[in-house]
Amino acid sequence: MYGRFGKIKTHPGKRDEMVEILLRAADGLSEFEGCYLYVVNKDKTDPDTIWVMEAWRSQDDHRASLALAETQAMIANARPLIADLSGGMEFNPVGGKGLTDMTD
Amino acid sequence: MYGRFGKIKTHPGKRDEMVEILLRAADGLSEFEGCYLYVVNKDKTDPDTIWVMEAWRSQDDHRASLALAETQAMIANARPLIADLSGGMEFNPVGGKGLTDMTD
Repeated sequence: MYGRFGKIKTHPGKRDEMVEILLRAADGLSEFEGCYLYVVNKDKTDPDTIWVMEAWRSQDDHRASLALAETQAMIANARPLIADLSGGMEFNPVGGKGLTDMTD
Repeated sequence: MYGRFGKIKTHPGKRDEMVEILLRAADGLSEFEGCYLYVVNKDKTDPDTIWVMEAWRSQDDHRASLALAETQAMIANARPLIADLSGGMEFNPVGGKGLTDMTD
């Protein structure tokens, strides 16, 4: 499994718009079987920061999702809202509640 | 909703043992309806670091889980393995794949 925890800092006041784009992206991944989790979170203290927690069957599945036409359109819509994408990280999901059901 | 991304650094060589404890904790939460996600991840570069991504219906649900006898026993088992717990964060989950199903 392949996991990501990505930080997205938007331009001031653009977080809600970005959240909507990301929730639509998550909806678009609902039938993508290589994606186990794509959870959108608002930072508690910075009003312009979003954290996306992702778990994928493999890094190749994540790469394949980036090539989808829907993903490319989402990225094009999102780009003007984004101020900074640094500060994320990758890890290896092992299991747990919310993940076990998908990998059994 | 209430979210946490917790960093656990174990004493050298103790990560696998800690992962097993956390997976049992996640299993114990399977019927706890206030817990939506409890996902255990291994850091990709530090062999002694674990990240736990959690989503709860509310912060009160998280607090209630800490009071469970099973949780207290888990914490007692885990404590000798832990070197450091700093470096985590809290946030507000909004939705997304893996979360929507539980909150609809």
